[in-house]
Formats: sequence, structure tokens, C-alpha cells
Amino acid sequence: MSQIDRRALIGAAGLALAGAGASGAAETTTPTSAAAKPAAPPAVTRILAHHVATARYEDLPEAVRREATRTFLNWVGVAIGGSHHETLDVAVSALAPFSGPPQAGLFGRTERFDIMNGAFLNGVSSHIFDYDDTHLKTVIHPAGPVAAAILAYAELHPVSGRDFLNALVLGIEAECRIGNAVYPDHYDVGWHITGTAGVFGAAAAAGRLMGLTEQQMVYALGLAASQPVGLRESFGSMNKSFNPGRAAANGLFAAILAAKGYTSSDGMIEAKRGWANTISTKQDFREITEGLGTRYETLSNTYKPFACGIVMHPAIDAAIAMRDAEHLKPEQIRRVDLKVHPLVLELTGKTAPRAGLEGKFSIYHAVAVALVAGAAGEKQFSDGAVRDPVIAALRDRVVPVVTPGIEAAQVDMTITLDDGRTLHRRVEHAIGSVERPMSDAALERKFTDLADGVLPAAQIRRVMGLCWSLETLGSAGDVARAGVAQA
Amino acid sequence: MSQIDRRALIGAAGLALAGAGASGAAETTTPTSAAAKPAAPPAVTRILAHHVATARYEDLPEAVRREATRTFLNWVGVAIGGSHHETLDVAVSALAPFSGPPQAGLFGRTERFDIMNGAFLNGVSSHIFDYDDTHLKTVIHPAGPVAAAILAYAELHPVSGRDFLNALVLGIEAECRIGNAVYPDHYDVGWHITGTAGVFGAAAAAGRLMGLTEQQMVYALGLAASQPVGLRESFGSMNKSFNPGRAAANGLFAAILAAKGYTSSDGMIEAKRGWANTISTKQDFREITEGLGTRYETLSNTYKPFACGIVMHPAIDAAIAMRDAEHLKPEQIRRVDLKVHPLVLELTGKTAPRAGLEGKFSIYHAVAVALVAGAAGEKQFSDGAVRDPVIAALRDRVVPVVTPGIEAAQVDMTITLDDGRTLHRRVEHAIGSVERPMSDAALERKFTDLADGVLPAAQIRRVMGLCWSLETLGSAGDVARAGVAQA
Repeated sequence: MSQIDRRALIGAAGLALAGAGASGAAETTTPTSAAAKPAAPPAVTRILAHHVATARYEDLPEAVRREATRTFLNWVGVAIGGSHHETLDVAVSALAPFSGPPQAGLFGRTERFDIMNGAFLNGVSSHIFDYDDTHLKTVIHPAGPVAAAILAYAELHPVSGRDFLNALVLGIEAECRIGNAVYPDHYDVGWHITGTAGVFGAAAAAGRLMGLTEQQMVYALGLAASQPVGLRESFGSMNKSFNPGRAAANGLFAAILAAKGYTSSDGMIEAKRGWANTISTKQDFREITEGLGTRYETLSNTYKPFACGIVMHPAIDAAIAMRDAEHLKPEQIRRVDLKVHPLVLELTGKTAPRAGLEGKFSIYHAVAVALVAGAAGEKQFSDGAVRDPVIAALRDRVVPVVTPGIEAAQVDMTITLDDGRTLHRRVEHAIGSVERPMSDAALERKFTDLADGVLPAAQIRRVMGLCWSLETLGSAGDVARAGVAQA
Repeated sequence: MSQIDRRALIGAAGLALAGAGASGAAETTTPTSAAAKPAAPPAVTRILAHHVATARYEDLPEAVRREATRTFLNWVGVAIGGSHHETLDVAVSALAPFSGPPQAGLFGRTERFDIMNGAFLNGVSSHIFDYDDTHLKTVIHPAGPVAAAILAYAELHPVSGRDFLNALVLGIEAECRIGNAVYPDHYDVGWHITGTAGVFGAAAAAGRLMGLTEQQMVYALGLAASQPVGLRESFGSMNKSFNPGRAAANGLFAAILAAKGYTSSDGMIEAKRGWANTISTKQDFREITEGLGTRYETLSNTYKPFACGIVMHPAIDAAIAMRDAEHLKPEQIRRVDLKVHPLVLELTGKTAPRAGLEGKFSIYHAVAVALVAGAAGEKQFSDGAVRDPVIAALRDRVVPVVTPGIEAAQVDMTITLDDGRTLHRRVEHAIGSVERPMSDAALERKFTDLADGVLPAAQIRRVMGLCWSLETLGSAGDVARAGVAQA
């Protein structure tokens, strides 16, 4: 019997533990040790649930509403853009035989799925290019899990644009705040934080639209805590975009169950054997509970102007600005010298990329294509772009040098022309950063570039128009209906 | 720009990391440090995938086939038993509007769902009473995630009993071996290991029935690794039984996607930022790869004869044996003295339980009801049993004393009768342990007790018959079809 150790007994008597108190058996029978226990964390799950269940649209600052609208528009654009990638073709064909009623459409496609499969697929689509929004403090991509879940729901059950926007903000706040509480330890060890924190955002936002009570919201967050998604090892495979999609579906699943009375524990975020303590070595619960309704993580959301890791963005920004200012032609350019931060060569040092994906990890290609095309979207990181002889020739004349004093978000670029002239530009904050956000017009260009070839131009304009007017829509589901391909 | 730290840059450049190698950026640009790196783990995911994709039914030892059959029968019984609990009523009503085609039935019920929702619901049902099978080494409940997934699949796509049994064993081996690799650290920190390891079992078993290639199986395991389920904080709520159900559905989801070409990484179990390193502080990969096809965790599976934590099982066992041997009546019993291990009072010390669930945490009630009823199934832990005046009166005459030298799996019981006689019994290995497994007849009695009131007696016998003859069935889905309620 010695094989059956204490753990086995405790485990097999799981209900006993729960019945005696969630924090485990030892505590329940040694009351004399209570004085030595550290102070219990506040009721984090309940505080968050209360806020999510009750916060009013009318109290959202205008800047938050505006940023959430930009977040939504950017998200719809990337979801349309990814909709015909092989990743989505595979997932659609795999899930079609098991889907429920045709409740939700897919951006850029004709198939319809039940809302949970629909949320999954739009969530996958929006992350395929890794070109969606980024909360830089946690590297969470906030929109995917939240918007995919509630847009599917809003197709089935009419939701006003105002209620939708409020839920979107509440979901983003939930996931980014929970992310803040555990970042960076949680991310460093290997979790794909977009999928682990994202499921809370999806559950919170969907639960709000379903009108969950505070207690039901506590349970929805608890069921969300039980379903984290994603490991960093999968980066570079289809599994990466799987994660925000599955987080969206899992959060929706949690809210749907909680709405009917499925229960969880009251303290799944903060309890000793709850989410934060189990999944992270760091827990800062104040990040979750402090300033709810006054401090907005939504305001820190950013959008990528270029379809590659942000480490190359300052150089691309500088290259495009110099090209446009001087109307540069590739044949004029003798040499491009860049002073860069060490991470640039560490992460994107491929000198001779052979395929589009490799081009995303080549500062040489990125600068060359930016100088030639004046852009760095998905098309500039295609196989064709990487193999273009003009771009390849220019790439060999790009000379990055790691230079002390240059920060990761800076670049110092000097272009030497064939006539001997030199041009110089230094970037302190690349376009797309919190300090130099993309303009609304730039977001529209990005959207159009992504949707071009997927939807007709007039339809693209119509979908963008609906996104911009989200707050005034009678039915937010109109965006989903407008964004599908015509059968 | 200093706000954008190294982590943010690495994270936003996620694809770059993956493109440059899974183990992270720093390693890829510092080849000189390679010599200092610890030896890489073996290709654990691939080795396991190869085994799962190729192991033959014909090579299964007879004892393994027999134990897997017993595991299956026990699982079907608990799934029928839980099928009308409020937990399942709630889940069924919540999910019905979103389910796909009626591909899979629910034990004991009339509703039909698509196979993923069906797997979820049967998986939940089977864990509601916490009365399912237990792999004591890891406290994993192996059958739930695996059997729920493949039985739903076997209803949709005909699968022979032999292939089903082979897949069941392979799934149990996958989850228990992966559990061994991370237990106890992984469980101690807070994960509900049945849901976190179980998803691998479900993916492996379902993937095998789908005929996945080795590479597809690698990806199915990778997508499974991305979807762990369950935290111990939820024990005592409906969320506990949620976990094996969701593990079954997640594993099936992973296999369905992988079968169509959805990719993951090659080393999701063992890589630096893969599953084991991210989710546990202990990793013993030999537990996964050594002795595949020769050492079977399936042989260590156990079944609970009593519907409560195993810490009380020795005392219940002793009580029933003495009652039956002496034909004891409650009114004859003056006093019951028990020498017990400290855990007995720590976990099950409730002296005056008021409801059935509390009775599961009362050694006083458990011994009393065992002496009165000669059993300790679900009915003996009902509200009615706890409030029965005869049982309650006897409960007050039960005197457990923590005694040095008594191990957790032992008990020493002395019953003093009203006529002054004393009876004595010492239990070294309770019935249901690996050392004293439940007999087939006892498993049948347990099954019948659980199914009584849910299905007619003739149907109960028929379902049990099909379970016992699993190996010879032309279509394993017959068990599912035979186990539903008649509309």
C-alpha cells in the first residue's frame, strides 16, 4: 500500500478536498496555522466579473471607443486577408462535417458554421499573417479571441453596435489585465499568452452580451480559466493561428454553459490552485482589479503597418520615407547603411531568403522591398517578391551594423546614391507604435491591401464603412454578413 | 521606445523565432554556445506518435485486453449513472442549439449530438460521481477522455471491437505515460491532470481510429498539447466533470484537424517551449518513450467499489466484510473503533454530515452506512441515506483514532456488540486496489446499481454483455447505441 502515496489519496478523494475548502486538505484541519498564512488575495474573479457584468457603454471615454473601433476594423481586415490561406481551407474542410446550424459566416468565404466553429475559424483567419493588433506590454493580440467570439454571437442574436463595442472593450480589458498580471514569466516559460489570456476575454465579452449575472460571469471566467490554449513551440506552424481561434471558441463555450447554470469555483483566477498560481510564477492581481473603468489597456493597442516582426519596422519606416521624399529608384541606390539594435540581426539576419516566409526574417529583404515598392505588406513578403531580381540585387547592398546606443525601436539609416550624394534619416518611433500610431487612412490602406483579391472593391469599402460606424449600427452582425463572399 | 522591451519584440516577431528554430532567438545566433547546451531530449512526440500509429492489436497481451475491457465496462456504467444529474441536464440544454448532426448518442438519454459535443457530454457524465477508474500513480482517471472520444467516433464511422480496444489501450498508455512524466509536480501546482494529460489520450486514440500517419499523429499530439484542460481549484463544482469531457472533445478536435493536414510543431511534448517544460517543473521523458508495447500502464488501472474518496475504502471494506460474516444488525452494535491513518480524519472528518455530498467526507457516515446497507455506492451517499435515523444513530458510535503504524491504505477495526462480544478485522489492501482488484462480478454489481433507475434491467444486462464482448464486436458503436434511453 505504500505505493498509494498521499497525493494519490488526495487526488482520488478530489471531492473531499473541494468539500472541505478549495485551498487543500492540510489547511482545513490545522486552523492553528491560519495566522502564519499570507494574506489572501482579493476576490479577483468576482471583482472582474462584477465589472464586466455591469460596466456601461455610456461611461466609455471617447478615446477608448475610438481605439476599439480601430481595433475592430484592423481585425476585420486581417481576418478577410487570411481567409483563403491553406490553413483556413484545411480547418474548414475538417470541421464542416461536424458543424451545427449555419449561424455564423466566415469573412471572405461562403461557408457558414455554428457560432463556436465560426468563432474558431474567423479567429484562426485573423492571425494567419501575424499581422493583427498587438498589446505591446504583454504581446497579446487582443482582438482575435474577443472579436471572433462576439461577432459570431452577434450574427445569431441581434446586438446593437454600442453593446458590441462595450463588450469588445470589456473583453480586451479582461484579457490584457489578466495578461499583465502574469507577464512576463508566463510568456517566458512557453505559453502563447494570446491563447491563454484570450479565453478570458472571449468569455467575458460573450458573457456580457448574453446578459450573465455576476455569479454566472464568475463561473464563465472559471470555465475559461480551465481552458487555456497555446504553446510557443508551435510558432511557425498552423498551430499558432489555431490558438486565438480556439481561445475564442473556448470562451464562447464557457459563457454558453455558464448562462444555463453550469458552475465553477468562485475564485478560479486567484485561488491557490487556480489559474494564476498554476500557470505562472508571477501573479500581480492589482493589474486585474485596479482602475477598472478608469484605466484602459485598450488605449495601448497597436496595429502593424508592415507584415513582419516589429523589430524591422523602424528600418522599413525609414526606407519608405526616404524613397517617397526623394522619389528614389532602385538603380540609383549604391548602398544602404543601417545602424541597428542587436535584436535586428539576431531575429532577422537572413541574408539570402528563398521564400516569402523567410523574407519576414531578413532585414536585407525588408529594406530592399520597402525601397522598391514603398510598402511592406503581405504582398511584399510573398515568394515572388523575395525572388524578384531587382529586389534581390538591392538586398545585397543593404548593410546593417549593430551599433551601441541604438535602441530596439530606433534605426539610423544612410543611403548612398550612385551620384555620390548621401541621404540620412533617423527613426525614434516607428509608424505603428503607440507614440506614432497608424492613421485611420493608413489602416484603410492596410485593410484594402489585405482584402484585395478576396472581395470586390465596392464590398471592401462597404465593410470598412460598417466598421467605422460600428457604434451606430442597429445590428453589429451586419459587419459579419457584409464581409462574407458571395456564393 | 524603451517601453518596448526585448520580450515584446521577440513576441511580436513570433514567426521569426519559429523560422529560426523552436528553441528561441538567442540560441540561433550564438552557435559557439552550442557545446554548453544540455543534451537535447529524444524525439518524444515522434516516438510516441510512431507507436500509436503502428502498434497492433495482435501484440496486446491478454491481460491488457482484459483490463481494458474492464476499464471500458466500468466507464460505461458510471457514464450511465451520471446521465441524469443536474450537471448533464444543464450542459445538454446549453449545447443543443449549437450541435451539429445527430452523430452520437448520450448514455442513458435520448438526445443526440455531433461527435465532439457527444464526446464532451459522455465525458462529463462519466466523472460526475468521481466514481470512474483511477490510475493511482498519477491520479488520472484514464477512461473518460479516451473512451468518450472514440466511442462517439465509432458511432459515426464503423470500428471493429478489436480496433476500438487497441485504440483505447493506446490512448490510456499515451495519457498515463505523459502523466507519469510530469507527476507529481504538475498535479501539485494545481493542474487537474485528467484533463491536461487526458487530451493526449483522446487525440492519440481517435487519431489511431482515423488512420493518421505518423506525421499527422505528431501534429494531432501537438494540437492536443495546445489544449490542456482543468485546474484543481474547480473541484467540488460542475467544472470538475467538465474537465475529462472537454479533454475528450479537444483531443477529438485535434485529431480531426490533423487528419486533414492541419500542422503543428514536431516536438510539442519535449521542446524547450513545448508542453512538458511549460506546464511542469518535472519532466521525465523516459516515462513516455521507454517500454512502449511491453510495459502497460493500463494494467495499473483501478476501479472504485465505493462512491467516495479512496481514503475511506479500507474502513468500508472492513465494515462490509464483518457485517456480512456475522449478519450484523445496527441495533446489535454498541461501538465501532477504527485505527486509521491521519489522512482519514484530515480529509473525511465530518462528524455530522447534512447532505449526501457531505457524507462522502465523513468516515462516520461511511462506516455506519456500510454496516447498515452492506454497500457504499451512490445511493449510500444520497441525502436520504445521510438523514436516515438508523444510520445517523450508528454514526455517532463510530470512533476513529489516528494510530501510528497504520498506513493510508490500511485500517484496523474492532466492533463491540451489545452482548459484549468484540469482532476484529484488519485490512491491508482494500478491495479495489491493484493488489485486491474488484472482481468482474463486483464490477457488474456496481454497473447495475449505477444504471438502475436510468435504464430497464434487460437493457442494463444487454449493455454489460456488449461491453464484456467488446473484442468480438463487429461495430464498437453498438455499445453506444445500446446504452441510450428509448425515446
